[in-house]
Amino acid sequence: MPDELPTRTIAIDMDEVIADSMSRILAKYNAEFNADLTIARFAGINFRDAVPAEHRSRTNEYPNEPEFFKHLPVIENSQRVLKRLMKRYNIFITTAAMKYPTSFTDKYEWMKKHFPFIPCNNIVFCGDKSIIAADYLIDDNASHFAQFKGAGILFTAPHNINEQRYQRVNNWLEVEALFLR
Amino acid sequence: MPDELPTRTIAIDMDEVIADSMSRILAKYNAEFNADLTIARFAGINFRDAVPAEHRSRTNEYPNEPEFFKHLPVIENSQRVLKRLMKRYNIFITTAAMKYPTSFTDKYEWMKKHFPFIPCNNIVFCGDKSIIAADYLIDDNASHFAQFKGAGILFTAPHNINEQRYQRVNNWLEVEALFLR
Repeated sequence: MPDELPTRTIAIDMDEVIADSMSRILAKYNAEFNADLTIARFAGINFRDAVPAEHRSRTNEYPNEPEFFKHLPVIENSQRVLKRLMKRYNIFITTAAMKYPTSFTDKYEWMKKHFPFIPCNNIVFCGDKSIIAADYLIDDNASHFAQFKGAGILFTAPHNINEQRYQRVNNWLEVEALFLR
Repeated sequence: MPDELPTRTIAIDMDEVIADSMSRILAKYNAEFNADLTIARFAGINFRDAVPAEHRSRTNEYPNEPEFFKHLPVIENSQRVLKRLMKRYNIFITTAAMKYPTSFTDKYEWMKKHFPFIPCNNIVFCGDKSIIAADYLIDDNASHFAQFKGAGILFTAPHNINEQRYQRVNNWLEVEALFLR
């Protein structure tokens, strides 16, 4: 008997869920300002609020710099678990790329390089995620959940550790346990 | 009294609905092959089936050429009617850009130039449109309607004139009459 076709859809954010953009922002910041900030400094706050006000206009620009997205590390276990999830669910990558119009090609190439098993037809560059039709949205940014019609699942990132309103997964092993138990 | 916030969402395709890509493909083809094809030749068939088989590999490449999307004409009345629709509906532009990864920046710049009143957060580059959550999808490609959960509205283009399964609008004046009567 062939497997049944998947009927449920999981939408998955890119930055901080499958792509580690935070470590790259931090490395760029430390190099430029000769600082030694660590991830722990950003517990419960956004990066922009953790650096001196006079540095913000620079740090806001990091994701717009050429090749910023090209070399991002892959979040641990995301490839293996996504491969497994694809056998049981419709999987879409839904990333708020419209904030960084210079990132389109790099994000697309990054997906082809690190997640070649996800069809390009299942990649979505968007802004407002209320347009996403899925049963679940795994995202580190809780603001996307308010208008989302499915269930929002918060992927832990330093900035969101105090968010209490949504179901939380701390890593991809927890995603695996939640959806494939 | 302020207007109520819009509650219904209309997703709108880009090529052949607000951007006239067909006339540019035709012009490129006629120039390259010293032909004099007109739009009428494509009634009920896709472009690729209307040209000799030996030309297809070239014509398939036209949308991948640099700046193809940059100079597309705007479909008549789409700007004025979309401005009106935005007062009553949530409007998203949902374009199957993943087929042409070289087109991302040109499509984004084209939107900013011709539809500056549509926020970039309401632009979606996707592939499979089953991921779009909207009440209506206005599209020239009926294949997107099968999995779409809202109502598909077919925007007339030469290739789709024989499609009978969906509600049809022939131009933007008919969109205006349908949604703003």
